Order: sequence, then C-alpha cells, then structure tokens
Amino acid sequence: MSTSIQIVEVGARDGLQNEPDIVSTSDKLALLNRLIDAGAKRLEIASFVHPGRVPQMADAEAVIAGMPDLPGVSYIGLCLNKRGVLRAIASRDGGKRGVDEAGCVMVASDTFGQKNQGQTMVEGLRENAEMLRLAKAEGLVAQVTISAAFGCPFEGHVPAQTVVDIAKQLAESGPAEIALADTIGVGVPAQVSDLFGRVRAVLPPEIRLRAHFHNTRNTGIANAWAAYQAGVEVLDSSLGGLGGCPFAPKATGNIATEDLVFLLDRSNVASGLDLEKLIAVNHWFGEIMGRPLPSMVGKAGGFKAAA
Amino acid sequence: MSTSIQIVEVGARDGLQNEPDIVSTSDKLALLNRLIDAGAKRLEIASFVHPGRVPQMADAEAVIAGMPDLPGVSYIGLCLNKRGVLRAIASRDGGKRGVDEAGCVMVASDTFGQKNQGQTMVEGLRENAEMLRLAKAEGLVAQVTISAAFGCPFEGHVPAQTVVDIAKQLAESGPAEIALADTIGVGVPAQVSDLFGRVRAVLPPEIRLRAHFHNTRNTGIANAWAAYQAGVEVLDSSLGGLGGCPFAPKATGNIATEDLVFLLDRSNVASGLDLEKLIAVNHWFGEIMGRPLPSMVGKAGGFKAAA
Repeated sequence: MSTSIQIVEVGARDGLQNEPDIVSTSDKLALLNRLIDAGAKRLEIASFVHPGRVPQMADAEAVIAGMPDLPGVSYIGLCLNKRGVLRAIASRDGGKRGVDEAGCVMVASDTFGQKNQGQTMVEGLRENAEMLRLAKAEGLVAQVTISAAFGCPFEGHVPAQTVVDIAKQLAESGPAEIALADTIGVGVPAQVSDLFGRVRAVLPPEIRLRAHFHNTRNTGIANAWAAYQAGVEVLDSSLGGLGGCPFAPKATGNIATEDLVFLLDRSNVASGLDLEKLIAVNHWFGEIMGRPLPSMVGKAGGFKAAA
Repeated sequence: MSTSIQIVEVGARDGLQNEPDIVSTSDKLALLNRLIDAGAKRLEIASFVHPGRVPQMADAEAVIAGMPDLPGVSYIGLCLNKRGVLRAIASRDGGKRGVDEAGCVMVASDTFGQKNQGQTMVEGLRENAEMLRLAKAEGLVAQVTISAAFGCPFEGHVPAQTVVDIAKQLAESGPAEIALADTIGVGVPAQVSDLFGRVRAVLPPEIRLRAHFHNTRNTGIANAWAAYQAGVEVLDSSLGGLGGCPFAPKATGNIATEDLVFLLDRSNVASGLDLEKLIAVNHWFGEIMGRPLPSMVGKAGGFKAAA
C-alpha cells in the first residue's frame, strides 16, 4: 500500500456553504492561509454558484483574488455547470492567478440531480463533458466528482453499476481525476472497497481516484481508511469537520481534516499536514464560528506515543 | 469473514460511570430493559467498585436485583479486584439470578494500572489469575479485559509485545474471553489488525476475542470494522456513545451502539440488534440525560436503501 496520500482541504467551500451566518471574506482568506501554513497543498476555495442560491459563496471572486500566488499549491473552484467553468476561467483573466482547477460535479441520481443542479444523469453527463472540455482547453486542471455515489436521500439505493457507467463515460472527456462522493454519509467500508474497485477497473490508469466522505453516521473515517486501502490516492476533508448536510440537519458534515490526519499519522501514512497546527487552526476558527467545531481530535487533542 | 458479530452493550456501566449526575436505579433498569427489547443479549449492568470512588455505580446490587430473569441474556458485572468478584458471586446468593459473568480487568501499563487499580502489571496478573479462578469455581462466566492496550495516557506507547505477554499469561487461567480495550481512544485500524492478529496467534482457539473501542478521536468505528475483519467475535458499544473519558474531558466515549449497528446492517453483518428501536432508546434516554447523546446515527437517523 502507498505510504502517502494527498488531502484536498474543502473546509472553506463544502465546510462553509451550509452555514447560515456569512463568514467574511477576510476570515475565509485567513482560514485558507492558515490551512496552507499547516501543509494543505490542494484547497477548494470557492464555488461558482448563484449567490441567491448559496449566499455564503457570493464572494467567490473576492476570495480567489485574495489568495497568495504560491507555487506548489492548487486552488479548486467548484463548478456546477458551464457558467461555473466560465467563471473559473475568468478568474485568470489578465494574467491573474485565479483558480488552478475546475472541480466539476454531477449526481448519480436523477431525482437528487434535478433538485441539486436541475439535471438528470443524462443531462449531467452531457453538461460535464462540455465543462471538462472547456476547462482543459483553457489550461485548467479539469476534474469531476460523482455525488451521492453511495446513496441518495430521495431514491435510496444507488446501484454500483450506475456509478461505474457514469465514471466510464466521464473518463472519455479525459479528466485528471474522478471523485466518488458520499454526499449524505451513508456509505460503509465494504461498499467503499467494492465501488472504488469497480470504478478503478474501468478507468484508464492515468485518471486519479479521489474520495469525498461525510461523517453523518460516523462511518466517514472508516470509509477514508477503506478508500486508502483500496488504492485511492486523494481524500477530501474539512477543517474541524465543518459542513452540515441539509438532508440530516442535526448531523455534522465532512470528515474532519484533524481526525483524518490523526488516523494517517498513527498509521504511518504521510499526508504533509501538521496535526498540531491543524488543531490550532481549529481552535482559532471555532472562536470565529462562536462554537466548538465537530472534529473529535480538535477536542481531545493528538496523542504523543512517547508521552 | 463471519456474517455475524456479537455486541456487548456497555451503556449502563461504562457509558454512565463518568456522568456527574446520578442516574436513578429505575432509569438504569428502564434503559437496560429497553436495550434488551432492542435485541441486546449481553449487557454490562454494573461495576463492583467502591461507591466513594464511582458514586454512579453505588447502586450495583440494586440494579442487578432489579433485572428480569431472562433466558438467553447474559449480565456482566465489572470486577476490578477480588472484592469485586466476591460481590459478583454474592449477587447470586439464595438462588437469585445475579450476574452471569465476572468481567475482570487489568491495565497494560504500570503507571495507569497504579492510578486506576492500585496495581502494577505484575500485580494485576496475579490478582486476575485469582479472580478468574474464583469466578469460574463459583460457576460464573469468567472473562477479562486488557485496558489501555492501544496506548496509555501517562506512558504513551504501549508495546504490542506487552499486550501479547499479558494475554498469554491471562489465558493460563482459562477465561472464556479476552478483550483488548482502547481505553483512551488512540488506536487506529492498522494497529487493531496487528494487535488482534498477534494476540490470536498465542491464544488457544477456545478463548474468544472481544474488542472495546472509544471514539475519542473518531477512529472508533474504523477500529471496530478492522476488528471484525481481523476475526474478533465480540464488540463492546454503548447506547448513544455515552461514556466520557476522564483523560479527554471534552471528548465523547465509547463507540455508539446505533452507529455500530448502522455500520453492520449496511455491511450485511448480523448483530441481532434493531436499529430503529435503538434510535428510539437513544431519543428516550437523551430526554433523561437532558441533552442529545453523542451518537451520530441517533441524530441523523438510519438509511433506507429502498427509500
């Protein structure tokens, strides 16, 4: 098994987008800079959605413009449609740094896809093919996430074959990476191993696999470990475990970066992130949010094997 | 791999023992009866400790006397020393049901053992040999837990060989079961696989293995799954994830029974417990405790694959 894994920090986007209180642009920038200081190399920094739909993301362009032009760090903008990709491209107008990656997305469920993006799976495949082509043509790293790959809040079971078929067809557009997302946190490790194994088997080897887990039902860290064991090269996580799920309002969201890094550190799997720095970022950002963040390691602290 | 696993419900003992507000005997009995109704077949119902040390367990004998005399259900009393085993034996005086099992315990760390039970590992081994012999001679099921097997809050790293040596020596007293406990919640799946593999290799096949995990740093469910994969036959869990750890005051305790059963149900591993009933017990007991319990599935609910 690999001795390292890459983490995509999604706290400033997926982590915040369902927060009812708007976090200021300067606080978002401070959060992102502290995460980079803690070792984050790929970060979701904004979502190109309509500000009326997700007010928390209304300052996408301002956040992007405020980020430092660092080498070796990649900024991701989430794109739900072609308009999103065009905004990602526009973020680089006039030689500005902008975003480095267009994170495209579609849902593995007709009902959820229609509610989330106003499109069926067939429509999502068509739209994403154009989005990926457009992003690549403009020099952006083009990657795509298949949402609700482990279950749908409306349709329930999502057949593995549906996800495999979507991945196979998306692969024809040559994305750098395909992610499977457990958007509502219903996946379990055996399903993770099975689904990533099936998807890997139909994809060309140059397409990286990424996993995105929510800890809604406490299986997130177990799923992350199963994904690592299945050969997945990249894991999404969110500082503090931020990121509520609108379909489980009392539950927390993404797996927490600190909890993931604790797991990886104790398992001798390198992530490049510094656990003590992450815990400090957690406590600092908890003050800004006015409440302790869901992460468990943020509360309990790490563990020095040589105490 | 096995298609089933047994769960020991520890909510009424490990779950409650660190709660500052005393839960009444009748509420404990109601909790235990509801857990049995939800399918629990083995339950920790009391701890034979000095009431001055753990006031929450001062009603041990009253709880035991109040339990129904059901066939096919096993009641465990935790015994920290010979006095505890004598109380377990006395619970059956005069033909009463009493407890069925003496759950003995020692710590895999001299410092923690001295603080917790006033004994070094060598003293713990001597005491437990007598405790197990005594319990067996009186017809109780004798089983033993090795605490802090995955790390010590005072000494840090606990060498795997220390745990293996303890297990091997305890096995000479012929316990029905040996449990490894991650008392402070620092274990990770790779360590779980490694440690249970090593211990299994030195034990006679008739001694069952049990695993006890705390979710202090969010690795509890991942560890439970790793233990299942390593062939462990019994898992401890606590209704609602009750059970604070005095060494990590802001963190939650045992893995939650609901979260574990959600994992097992979705993985087609039978536990005999009913998830919907457990969630109802969670909500009922949360009212008694005056706060939502830590369990995630208790908050988010289950998932009907055929929605």
